[in-house]
Amino acid sequence: MEDDYGANLSSIREAAKRIGPFVHTTPVLTSHSLDSLAGRKLFFKCESFQKGGAFKIRGACNAVFSLSDAQAAKGVVTHSSGNHAAALALAAKLRGIDAHIVIPKNAPKCKVENVVRYGGKVIWSESNMKSREDVANNVLRDTGAVLIHPYNDARIISGQGTISLELLEQAPQIDTIVVPISGGGLISGVALAAKSINPSIRVLAAEPKGADDAAKSKAANRIIIMPEVNTVADGLRACLGDLTWPIVRDLVDDIIVVDDKEIIEAMRLCYGILKVSVEPSGAIGLAAVLSDGFRNNPAWNNCRNVAIVISGGNVDLTVLWDSLKSV
Amino acid sequence: MEDDYGANLSSIREAAKRIGPFVHTTPVLTSHSLDSLAGRKLFFKCESFQKGGAFKIRGACNAVFSLSDAQAAKGVVTHSSGNHAAALALAAKLRGIDAHIVIPKNAPKCKVENVVRYGGKVIWSESNMKSREDVANNVLRDTGAVLIHPYNDARIISGQGTISLELLEQAPQIDTIVVPISGGGLISGVALAAKSINPSIRVLAAEPKGADDAAKSKAANRIIIMPEVNTVADGLRACLGDLTWPIVRDLVDDIIVVDDKEIIEAMRLCYGILKVSVEPSGAIGLAAVLSDGFRNNPAWNNCRNVAIVISGGNVDLTVLWDSLKSV
Repeated sequence: MEDDYGANLSSIREAAKRIGPFVHTTPVLTSHSLDSLAGRKLFFKCESFQKGGAFKIRGACNAVFSLSDAQAAKGVVTHSSGNHAAALALAAKLRGIDAHIVIPKNAPKCKVENVVRYGGKVIWSESNMKSREDVANNVLRDTGAVLIHPYNDARIISGQGTISLELLEQAPQIDTIVVPISGGGLISGVALAAKSINPSIRVLAAEPKGADDAAKSKAANRIIIMPEVNTVADGLRACLGDLTWPIVRDLVDDIIVVDDKEIIEAMRLCYGILKVSVEPSGAIGLAAVLSDGFRNNPAWNNCRNVAIVISGGNVDLTVLWDSLKSV
Repeated sequence: MEDDYGANLSSIREAAKRIGPFVHTTPVLTSHSLDSLAGRKLFFKCESFQKGGAFKIRGACNAVFSLSDAQAAKGVVTHSSGNHAAALALAAKLRGIDAHIVIPKNAPKCKVENVVRYGGKVIWSESNMKSREDVANNVLRDTGAVLIHPYNDARIISGQGTISLELLEQAPQIDTIVVPISGGGLISGVALAAKSINPSIRVLAAEPKGADDAAKSKAANRIIIMPEVNTVADGLRACLGDLTWPIVRDLVDDIIVVDDKEIIEAMRLCYGILKVSVEPSGAIGLAAVLSDGFRNNPAWNNCRNVAIVISGGNVDLTVLWDSLKSV
């Protein structure tokens, strides 16, 4: 594989060493009942049990601990409504530096609470991207802190890629990995590591219908930005960046699009059968594997041992309940 | 340790070999946030991820696979409203024999569904113990099947004890194990194995206030049966048996009693922080460790590395929600 993506297997292995002391090796769960439903053997890589409740701490720790002491002294900043915000706050706390987190006013309550719990300094913005970036730029100017983008950053991509290193040790028989896609940081890291180690592994993205910019981008062979997104999966509303797009374009075998109803049904199965508390964005990989689009596509008939990255578990219980009732 | 309890370390090691091909080695999860709340290091042994969603498959498999072919051919029978019923159905299915399950009409819906999903033959009874036993005796007479009691059976105790073998390998630093108590099968096996391997380990029971017959029995030094029980923890309503009582009497260091409100708050923490879907009975160990009764007891000050058995994850989502709202 060519090394022109910013991150590569070597940077991912370095990330694994760097973040090892700070993150959990998350377990891989299996369930005969879900295997029967899917008609394949499934391996659930449960990043919902990761520190901060999502995979994001991997990239955040790798970024924060990559900084020189001089850089780190001025702190870090990001704009994020979600798990990256909490993860960056936690990573900064672990290094003993400040994290300035710009959060849109409509962010899920439990995710804001996580930022506060980890000692992040919250700065509110409007929910549109312009306001978020403006506020973040003001913080950057005032503090000299380092911006850590949620996904369009080689350090972040390398950190998220450490999931594949663990997964291929825990379940070496897997022939397919299904990964949620939003800005593409997670799937870029996972695909780079997995395909470098075993080029025959398929890497499939799972994307919500109401925010399927990645599927549209793959179809058009260029980044498509949607004017508006609408999905229950609040962690999957971002669009691809200029670092993640080439990796998604070249290394992701397909993008499986599912609707909110399928996502919520998958979330219910995670609670009811797998016994794992997941957020909608975290359950989408299972939704994809159970979808007609995947099951009826002959290209995936020989996906027999399928890993699914359960990406996060941060859900407001009220929101969970309203979602489950709505199906 | 004397060998007069019916089960012992040797029968537990045999059980581990016997059931190994059929059960999961469940993961041990940790959480800094919960450690901070508890003021100790906690290790969650998550039997909620076990096959059938609870530890019960360990004992059930050990019992079913201990039978001779002639015995097994006539099937097995039990009366249980809960996880043992599903586990016995599953174990019987694995051996290819019949399981006749007597279930009281008021059993939780999701637990009945599990029995049906695993192919158990359901026979309904009234909810009182006399009706359950009468119906079971009729089945025994008609089929010649073997009765597998939910807990008062050395094969069951030995099977449940395999949890300690795993736990002491996964987290050898533990100095304390907290275990839910109902009929005493789980804690008897756990205590026998753990104390045989390391006599200095404390084994503490967690019991709901509305069904605290074990605490009353320990205090009175004889089996006390409560005329009526009332707790949200539907899996913890049984009373001790003549096999489990001597083990509880001799090897369980203390019984921590918590009320339903504490159980539900622990369940909420399991969902919100640990990201594990647990039933009320499954969360009671965490409730005990967070209770004033435990924290303020100087005898437990030096419990620094505390394992908590999360015993099961089978909860109706409607029931879960009503419980969480009620706190």
